[in-house]
Amino acid sequence: MRRLLPGKLVLATHNAGKRREFAALLAPHGLEVLSAGELGLPEPAETGDTFRENATIKALAAARATGLPALADDSGLAVEGLGGAPGVRTADWAQRPDGSRDYPAAMARIAAEDRSPERRCAFVAVLVLAWPDGHTESFEGRCEGRWIDPPRGGNGFGYDPLFVPEGETHSFGEMTPEEKGRFSHRARAFAALEAACLGG
Amino acid sequence: MRRLLPGKLVLATHNAGKRREFAALLAPHGLEVLSAGELGLPEPAETGDTFRENATIKALAAARATGLPALADDSGLAVEGLGGAPGVRTADWAQRPDGSRDYPAAMARIAAEDRSPERRCAFVAVLVLAWPDGHTESFEGRCEGRWIDPPRGGNGFGYDPLFVPEGETHSFGEMTPEEKGRFSHRARAFAALEAACLGG
Repeated sequence: MRRLLPGKLVLATHNAGKRREFAALLAPHGLEVLSAGELGLPEPAETGDTFRENATIKALAAARATGLPALADDSGLAVEGLGGAPGVRTADWAQRPDGSRDYPAAMARIAAEDRSPERRCAFVAVLVLAWPDGHTESFEGRCEGRWIDPPRGGNGFGYDPLFVPEGETHSFGEMTPEEKGRFSHRARAFAALEAACLGG
Repeated sequence: MRRLLPGKLVLATHNAGKRREFAALLAPHGLEVLSAGELGLPEPAETGDTFRENATIKALAAARATGLPALADDSGLAVEGLGGAPGVRTADWAQRPDGSRDYPAAMARIAAEDRSPERRCAFVAVLVLAWPDGHTESFEGRCEGRWIDPPRGGNGFGYDPLFVPEGETHSFGEMTPEEKGRFSHRARAFAALEAACLGG
């Protein structure tokens, strides 16, 4: 275990929205965020089989390139009856040849392929902190639930209309952003990181 | 970061020698070691591309199967001019079809394939602690050096005759166990883990 001391932290992302989101979360802890994108670092190939592996690849590459601690995330939908798929391929399953996304097709594929009666699945986010000496720490946040067929609701994005959190009756696609926010897998992962490495 | 509190820890190994070695290191910290082998847990497939991934696969599987924190290690030789090979395949490179090991052949393969003038390489060990909630921490220990051709000395085992630590003139194969012990990559990884999660 290692605490993140006030100072510079590299966010291993080339996504400006994600950079802003994490910078706001980290600022109260005295952390100044630089992003891999603004530093001109190359994007490493995400060759891992799990969210944890891909986030580790990104965080370690950024930490070693800069000599600073680095933070990366990876997330997606894991369907139990499909052995955790689409998992790291969550976005790929919706990819059209022209680069646009077809989420209705990706949701239909899950309903066609998962024959388990329970239809259990989870949104999973993994955050990884890495230091230049090769030390890493990972934090997992999960939102357990089940998939429904047909999907319901027009809110949110991606697989949201497919997913009903455990103990709920409405899908993410039927919830307001505030309602959905109570279940955020990424917020849960960040809370674990905060308690462990930023607490006090 | 999370501290390992006194109590039970699962060592994710089926190797009795490794179980004894770690039990002795952990006993002074009030940790009672059970091993995956003695608990009858299955050995997960080590499908990772890196030491860290394989140790994470083993530690997480043991933590989730038992509901206890778990420790795993993975280690080997990484040759810079070969992109880190043999790496996770360090033992495989010496494997004969009948299951015995041919280390002279594996060392000759390195000398034949690495055309870089520096001949830089390192023995690397990664220890991973995992908890049932998916939190993981990794600790890396390295012993940097270079490979020599022909290999020298009859002490140690495996690739030891090939390897000369940085700043030294003798190979691991020419050192006594005590001399070699000063360079241990596994001891360095354990020292990092101890300082972070067991210190005080």
